[in-house]
Amino acid sequence: MAKNLELVLLLDCYGELLTERQRDLAELYYNEDLSLSEIAQMRDITRQAVRDSLRHSEQTMLATEEKLGMAARIRGLRECLEDIRQACVQGDTGRIEVLADQALELL
Amino acid sequence: MAKNLELVLLLDCYGELLTERQRDLAELYYNEDLSLSEIAQMRDITRQAVRDSLRHSEQTMLATEEKLGMAARIRGLRECLEDIRQACVQGDTGRIEVLADQALELL
Repeated sequence: MAKNLELVLLLDCYGELLTERQRDLAELYYNEDLSLSEIAQMRDITRQAVRDSLRHSEQTMLATEEKLGMAARIRGLRECLEDIRQACVQGDTGRIEVLADQALELL
Repeated sequence: MAKNLELVLLLDCYGELLTERQRDLAELYYNEDLSLSEIAQMRDITRQAVRDSLRHSEQTMLATEEKLGMAARIRGLRECLEDIRQACVQGDTGRIEVLADQALELL
């Protein structure tokens, strides 16, 4: 099971759509960066139960992202805003206007 | 049933979570701005069936917004980006940096 930044972002976007138990385990795994074994021990369940729950959560979040695309929008917006800050340092307001329009199109 | 901008935004955010039929009716009502009677006639169903479907869609979208808050984020981001464009005209890069940081915090 790959721990990656994509899933951290999906959990931030869609965590509230998971059950309380699913969210608890997913937060320990993705946000607290604990291992399956550590989580199993901490919650007194089997390693397999942790793995199954995480897999279900992953499926729910990926299916929701496919419908809503909230994470993709957020990634695009972050890039635009980081570029705007960069352009501020260079005092390039022409470029900032273009970037702000790009960001508005993502909304 | 109030037609308002809030629901147009919710439909844009969460329309893909509705059934195909619910989305079809909601788009005619909120995006095409047709009346209940016009939609009923166009789809050959009762006015009451249109109203019931719209009410269910509204409940689904409001409940999802309460969990995910995507529409609220989008409203906040739009305001920040409009203000950034305004500040570009005034050449105020200091203010743009502050606004870009505010927008990044919403993500």
